[in-house]
This record gives sequence, C-alpha cells and structure tokens, in this order.
Amino acid sequence: MSERVIEGIGATPRTGAGSVVWYRPGATSEDDSEEPVPESDREAERERFETARERAREELEAERERTAERVGEEEAAVFDAHRQFLDDPQIEEGVTEAIEGGTPAASAVREAFADPITQFEGMDGQMAERADDLRDVRDRLVRLLVGGERVDLAELPEGSILLAERLTPSDTAQLDPERVAGFATSTGGRTSHAAIFARSLAIPAVLGVGSDLESIEEDERIVVDGDEGIVVADPTDERVAAARTATADEVLDGRVATVDGREVEVAANVGRAADLEGAVSQGADGIGLYRTEFLFLDREEPPAEAEQYERYVEALEAFPEGRVVVRTLDIGGDKRIPYLDLPDEENPFLGERGIRRSLSSDEGLFETQLRALLRAGAAEGGDLAVMFPLVSTVEELEAALSRVEAVADSLASEGLEYAMPELGVMIETPGAVFMADELASRVDFLSIGTNDLAQYVMAAARENERVADLHDPLHPPMLRAIARSVEAAHDNDAWIGMCGEMAGDPDLTELLVGLGLDELSMSAVTIPAVKGNVSGVEDERARDLATHALTTTTRVDVTNLLSDS
Amino acid sequence: MSERVIEGIGATPRTGAGSVVWYRPGATSEDDSEEPVPESDREAERERFETARERAREELEAERERTAERVGEEEAAVFDAHRQFLDDPQIEEGVTEAIEGGTPAASAVREAFADPITQFEGMDGQMAERADDLRDVRDRLVRLLVGGERVDLAELPEGSILLAERLTPSDTAQLDPERVAGFATSTGGRTSHAAIFARSLAIPAVLGVGSDLESIEEDERIVVDGDEGIVVADPTDERVAAARTATADEVLDGRVATVDGREVEVAANVGRAADLEGAVSQGADGIGLYRTEFLFLDREEPPAEAEQYERYVEALEAFPEGRVVVRTLDIGGDKRIPYLDLPDEENPFLGERGIRRSLSSDEGLFETQLRALLRAGAAEGGDLAVMFPLVSTVEELEAALSRVEAVADSLASEGLEYAMPELGVMIETPGAVFMADELASRVDFLSIGTNDLAQYVMAAARENERVADLHDPLHPPMLRAIARSVEAAHDNDAWIGMCGEMAGDPDLTELLVGLGLDELSMSAVTIPAVKGNVSGVEDERARDLATHALTTTTRVDVTNLLSDS
Repeated sequence: MSERVIEGIGATPRTGAGSVVWYRPGATSEDDSEEPVPESDREAERERFETARERAREELEAERERTAERVGEEEAAVFDAHRQFLDDPQIEEGVTEAIEGGTPAASAVREAFADPITQFEGMDGQMAERADDLRDVRDRLVRLLVGGERVDLAELPEGSILLAERLTPSDTAQLDPERVAGFATSTGGRTSHAAIFARSLAIPAVLGVGSDLESIEEDERIVVDGDEGIVVADPTDERVAAARTATADEVLDGRVATVDGREVEVAANVGRAADLEGAVSQGADGIGLYRTEFLFLDREEPPAEAEQYERYVEALEAFPEGRVVVRTLDIGGDKRIPYLDLPDEENPFLGERGIRRSLSSDEGLFETQLRALLRAGAAEGGDLAVMFPLVSTVEELEAALSRVEAVADSLASEGLEYAMPELGVMIETPGAVFMADELASRVDFLSIGTNDLAQYVMAAARENERVADLHDPLHPPMLRAIARSVEAAHDNDAWIGMCGEMAGDPDLTELLVGLGLDELSMSAVTIPAVKGNVSGVEDERARDLATHALTTTTRVDVTNLLSDS
Repeated sequence: MSERVIEGIGATPRTGAGSVVWYRPGATSEDDSEEPVPESDREAERERFETARERAREELEAERERTAERVGEEEAAVFDAHRQFLDDPQIEEGVTEAIEGGTPAASAVREAFADPITQFEGMDGQMAERADDLRDVRDRLVRLLVGGERVDLAELPEGSILLAERLTPSDTAQLDPERVAGFATSTGGRTSHAAIFARSLAIPAVLGVGSDLESIEEDERIVVDGDEGIVVADPTDERVAAARTATADEVLDGRVATVDGREVEVAANVGRAADLEGAVSQGADGIGLYRTEFLFLDREEPPAEAEQYERYVEALEAFPEGRVVVRTLDIGGDKRIPYLDLPDEENPFLGERGIRRSLSSDEGLFETQLRALLRAGAAEGGDLAVMFPLVSTVEELEAALSRVEAVADSLASEGLEYAMPELGVMIETPGAVFMADELASRVDFLSIGTNDLAQYVMAAARENERVADLHDPLHPPMLRAIARSVEAAHDNDAWIGMCGEMAGDPDLTELLVGLGLDELSMSAVTIPAVKGNVSGVEDERARDLATHALTTTTRVDVTNLLSDS
C-alpha cells in the first residue's frame, strides 16, 4: 500500500506521527428521550437541569483557567461569554417553563436556545459569531443532561493525532503537547487562532486540509507534517520513524550571523508572562514584541503603575544581555476590555485602535504605562525599548514622544529613578510606510507588523476567509512596502525589525535578511529554525533574491522564486 | 451690532442668506394622553393605529420616490428598511395587545418599539444604526397618532436656512434647492451623507458647526457660506446682499487649460441616470466616474444586457465629444444588494468588494456587464472607457483583462458589433499604489479614488467620527501615495485622473494640477469653480506647490502651505 499525501497549510514547523482520534463535538448519545415527563417527576427534572448547569459552570471555570495559564488571558475571555449565556435569566426562564410543562430537560434546553441562536445568526459579523458561543453552551448542557460522550481534549491518549473539521480557540487550548502528537483540521489558515495556539504550544499542525480529511479513519496511523503542510495517510515505516525521531531544531544560544558575518537579532513575541520561559529556552536573543494587553485583561480596573513596573522588570531580568521591546497598549479593533468603555465600530480594524486610543484617552492609562516603563528602564537587566502601535502620521508620533518627555520630566521632579528607553514606531499602516523616512528620523527603530500591514495594504481583513488569498505577505505590493520601510530606516540611522507572522516563517528567512531587516521576532517555537537559517545565509545571494523578488509582479512569481532559490 | 462668525466645515462652494428654520424632529405635541382607554373605545383606538400605519406607508413611499429621483436609488434604500420595521409582525402584535389592554395607541407604539430599540442599541456597528431607523419609524407613527407638529422639509418657506443638530440622508433628500437657501448642522463632516447630498443638490451647506449653532434662534437672519465654511449670525447688509447675488460660478463649456496651456479634463461623477443632465449643464467635459450600482439597486434581479446597453449608450450620447469612464459593478463594503446574497462581514471595508466580487461571482454578472459595455462602445456618441474598482494585485487586473478578451471573442463569434474601450484601473488600495507601475503598463489609464484610498492608507474608516481627523486626503502620506501613482502612470504612458471627493474641492485644484493629474472628476456642482481655477493655474508655480507639499511632514504644514499660496 502506498502513501496517501493530502495537502494543507502547515502551522508549525514540526512533524508528528500517531493514531487518529476524530473529534466531532456535535454528536450526542441515544439516551435522549422526547417523551413528556409525568407531573410527579417534573421537580426532579428541574433539579437535573440545575445540577447540569452547576457542572457546566465548573467545567467552564476549569477550561478557562487552563486556557489562561497555557495560552493567554486574552484567549481565555471566550469562557466568560459562555458563562454569561449559561446564566442568562431569559434562557433560564424558558427552560424552567418548558420543564414545568412536561418537556424533558435536554429538549427544554434545545428549545430555549433556539430563538436566541436564530436571532444572532441573522446579525452581522461579530454578533453572528455569538451564535457559535450559544451553540457551544447548549451542547455542553445537553451532553451533561443526556450523558453524551465527550472527547476530553486535555486527556487524549498519548501519541494521538487529533482530526476535526475545525477546532475552536478553546478546543485548541485544552490540548496537551505531551500527549498530542499533532492535529489537522479541514478548515483554517496560517493566521487562524488554532494555528497561533498550535505554534504557542509547539504542536505539529496542518490546517485547511479540506474535505479529503474525512477519508482518514479513527485509529488509522498517520503523519502530520507541519513543515511541509501535509497529512500523510498509510505512511511508510521510514516516514513514521523519521517523524518520531524528529526533534525540534537545535537550540542556538547567543547571537547568530550570516555566513558573511552580518548579525541578525532573532527575538521572541510574548503575549503573557508565561511566554518568557519559552523564549529563553528556545534561545531568543531578546523580546522583539512584548504585547502589554494581557496585563489589562480579565480584571475590573487597569493595572497600577507598580504592578506594571514589576512585569516589565521581570521581562528585562529574563534577558540580561538582550533587548526587550515593549509595545504600548494596543486595544480596539478585535481586542476589547470591558472596563474601558470602547466604542462599537462598524469596521473595527479601521477604527480607534493602538496609539489613537492612547492619545485620545483621558483615563491616564498611557501616562501610567509610560511611567512604569521609564522606571523599569533604570532597573537591572536587559535594554528596554518602547514602541507605539498603529501610527499613521508624524503628528501621532510627535504627540506620543512629547507624552514620553512629559512623563520623564515629572519622574525627574519627583526624584524617581528612570532611564529613557530606545523609542520606536510600528510600521503597520500604509501611512507609516509612506512616511517611514520622517518617522525613522525621529526614533531609534522601526518594527514592521506584517499582519496588520497586510490588512491595510491589501484592503483584506485577516479573519475573512473570502479574501484570505489577498491577506498574504508574499504579494509583491507587501514586499515593496517592506523594502521601502527598510530603506527609510537605514537612510535615517534607525534599525528595523519585523514582528508579524511572516518573520517566523523559516522559509522566508533568506528573503527577509536579503531585504535588510536587522531583527526578526516570532513565536518562540520557530526561533531555533530561523536562527539556523540565518547562519546559512550568504549576504550577496540573499540580496540578489530580494532584488529579484522586488521585480516580480504576482505572488506566484514570488513563491516560484523562493522555491527555486 | 457686529457680525458673529461661527466656523464649521464647508460642504458646497456656495453661499446663501435667509431666515432660520430650526428642525428638531424629536419634539411632539401635548395631545398625547397616557390615560387608559375605556373598553368600548379600544376597537376605535386600534383602527386609529391602523390608519396611522397606512399613512406612514404612504409617506415612506413618497419620500422614497423623491429620494430615488433626486439623490439616487442607493440612498433611497433606507426607506425600504423603514418599511420593513413598520410591517414587522412582532411589533404589530405588541401594539395590538397593548391597545386591547387599554393603553392609548401612541403609548402602545412606544412600548412595542422599546425592546427592539434596546436590543439593537446593544449591538455592534451597523446593527446599532438600525436602532436609529426604528426610532424614526416609531416617531413617525407617534406623530401621526398624536398630530405632532412636523416640519415638512420638502415644503419649507422660500429663503429658509435650515438648522439642525444632524440631518439624516432622508432628511437631506427632501430639501428643495428652489426653496432652501442653505443649511447648517452641528455634526457631520465633508464626506458625510448630508454633505454629499448637499453637493448633489447644489445647496449651500456648512456642517460640523458644533454646539455654537444652538445660539442662533428661529427666524433670525443668517448667512451660510459653504465656500469659507462659516455661518454668520447678525450679518451686515452687505454680506446678505453679496450672498443673495452670489450666483454659481460661470459655467465654462469646452476644455480648459492652465495659463501655460496644459489641458486638464474636468469631468463629472454620475451615480444615477438623472445626473447626466446636471453634468452637461455644469459644463463637464465628460464623465470621469459612472457608478453602475444604481442599475442593480431596487429590483428583484440584475438588469439584462439590453437594459444596461441602453443606459451606457445614453451616457455616451450625452457627451458626444467627451469621454465616459464607466466603473464596473462595485458592490460589497457598505453597498448591499438583496438578490446577490452578499456575505455579512465583520470589517466590510476590508472584505469582498469591487473587482474581487466580480471575479469570484459565478452569476455571470461581470460577463453581462462587459458585453453591454463592449457593445455600447461601438455605438454613436463619446468615447467609452471602462475601469475596475478595488484592484490590489496585478493578478486581479490580468484576470479582469482576460475576461474582457473572452467577452470580445465571444461577441465576435456571435457576429455582434462591439468596440474595445479604453481600459483602466482604480487606484484605491495601497497595494495598487505600490504596484501602480505594473498596473499602468497594462492599461490606458489610472483613476485615483481618494475616499477609499484614504481609508486604507490611514487605516481609518470614512464613517467613523472618532478617526475623522485621520480620514483626510491632505495628510502627507496621502499626497505621497498620489504622487507615486501619477509618476507610475506617466512613466508608463498612461493618463491618470482622480474621482474622489478631493478632486472636487476648488481649493485643491492648483495642488492637484501641480501633482500632475490629467483629469479631475467630481459632483457636477463644483465643476464651474474647478474649471475656473484650472484656467488660473500657472504650471511652474503649481509644480513648486506640489513639490513643497511633498516635503511636508504634517497635515497642518500642508494646509498652511495651501493658505499661503
């Protein structure tokens, strides 16, 4: 029997072999009667519902904690939404009334959820997604009531390869990298939540496999190769052995340089305190993107200066020889914080995000963060750098810089110790690309955020599957935008990094080094591979590759060029 | 008594003087009892409600027709939404039940609308706006029931100056330019619907005046100067006389050229068939943007090839010596067409819009439109040009061009007469700016759509007031994007036009000519002023102005430069 190779989109540069476990969360048990409940049993049926609801609360609490700890506070917030729906008084009333009328509890739950689900389904965008949340809560309650089978994603047999049509962020967060040898889904892409979680947990994963995935059966032996982006059914023994012995790339401590001696900093993206450890263990030179949103999530009020100070110092201590680039608070868009009264916007990605919010806010949030940062800059440890997100005009940068000056003056007059960090601007709007020379002349560094930049350059939202082809940093206009930014930085004696998904793709290292980037920042899991690739880059060859890439007209030209090189 | 000048944002380059009529649609009459209705009168109360609903339907129908005729089919669609709410069975049931319980009809209407309004208010973006529509419908019913006063915007006394906090699109569409001498609102900006309608109707208008507007009283004599963007209370007699004698700029027929003889085409934007007449009467050289969406709106199925052909020929006949640039169907984003089953998107402006939809559609819409266009190109009349909206990659242009080739081949094989039009690309994504050289080398012309381009370059949605400052084409990054596009066009022997709001601002004519644009296309009302300004431009001075503008770093620098020049 020969191998059957099914192509998808690789999400993690890792390979795993194992036995298939299919995850089909829709299925329920047969123990699900529609018969009316006799009047004498209705009180007991109501209690069964209450018990199920109590257990659902416990499950949610446990899954929430696990997600917060292993993936991040931001991602854990989905469970708060589930909890709200679980405790919704209107739904509760609907269920109770139906049970009192003789409907079995499971059917009563289905009935009571039906209307709200239909209502949300009829709405636009974000609201329609809440229908999915409602369905999750409904299915959880029904399962607890009828004793339906549940695949416990946290307790999969060791050496499992999980297959599913799709995995929600919460599903993915439950996976235990010690047990799961990999997963593959028929939907999803490189920048979906499942892919980002997979990289964060270092689990081999292939997404967007399509309906061919259905041809693979429970308990079959397969290989998931996240590097090549393939799922292999009926794998040869050699392939299985190779997958099993495939360890992560060798961790390279210390700075790496190209063959010709050009040093390229390889740093980690950090979205929660727990990421620091992974960054260090994977050999990061420092932190290229420290997202500060997690400090603000899952709480009733913003973190005080002292708490922020401690977190920043903790990061600096983790990299005593390195640099830690902290991005100031980047809320708005798809990132919401309940206590901040953010506006509802029709096109949130084109709204009051990033530095816009920091500059317009009168809550003192920006000052508190800058105070904590400037004070942390004076602490022991690595070198602090601070950058501003979503800048699109020189005015915004100048306003942010004068806020930094004002904070420094006020710390000085209070006699507090502080140090001025390196200051930088994220290049993630086309406006910033066009003004990159003027921006670079005012700061120490630029950092390209390719995920957002691609949204605006290509006018294609990252989460919209209908325009997913456009949202790809290998489109020639994106390469031209990157090249223009690099040139502007170097002409103005600033260094320039990249901290979007693109930076962590080992297949693109030569191109990015050739384009002139001084720093690449990524999920910790891809650092060893990228460091290895940097060491193999020959400067002239890389420059030639970049020059060629900039003369191409289509994305296919670019990918052909890369695969030929 | 001295004049009191209040600053706002000029929407039309026209000035008007007259007596103030305040429009406060929230106010209702005193004849609005909360007393319970005796049981014997409840059937009559119910009939009163039915009568009011019937009259509301008639009003909506009349306003819908008026708007479609005077402003456009697209804008008239808001009345369909109102009609739906008026006929909503759940709301009807709520009202009827309350009346049967003794609640007076007006109170019953308020009660029945309360819940749906609250629900929509709690939602995001577009859905939240539907709360406004529900309120409009509720207020209309209440007014009809309690006989509340209604300012009939279509029947204002001659010489009125209308003041309001805001005007909805439907309010603005009712205004009669023969009667209204102008209007001013405390909210709104240059690209709001009210401003666009004002230009379309050629009514003097100043928006975004702020709360100072409240200091002006009913029946006061004021001047609204849409050119300077000011409202003048207690105006001198001289100012009133000047405003009254201020006629529109002299209509200039025939091509205009700068002092040094460089010809600049000044064309009209057309959004409905009725606009053709205004374009001709204002001296347009041709049509620089013929939006085809109106052909597809307010109907059950797409227009057939024959119907489209007639419309295109009609436009060509209106400009026998000129050029008519037709933009292929640009749906998606904020423009919806019920029979096309468009997706709900969370960030519609970053979704499947413009050429993306035409290329992905399997409904044959694109082919039908291209067939009608190529056949119209062979008819008597002006020169046809066809351009594609929202292109962001060379691939998309190549795909569109090969669809044109295929349509031509198929017309040839059918023996039908056709002619290949000039072909062009809209520059309205940053991707298109970065690839402008490659795009220009494949077509005859480019046309910059500044409204969308500003959204993406600045990452700021046009309708979001929180980021309104960013959505301004005078930000230096926008000027750089325009300059890069012009250079790419001319280097590749293509001509380049501009058809966004920016093109129609007479204050920017010198800058735009200096930047090298070959064509400017705008609302008909501003054509005489822009043509006049083109005739006054000295080439070298304009080029110097543009060169200076491109070295500025902030928007304030640009506006200072323009006001000094």
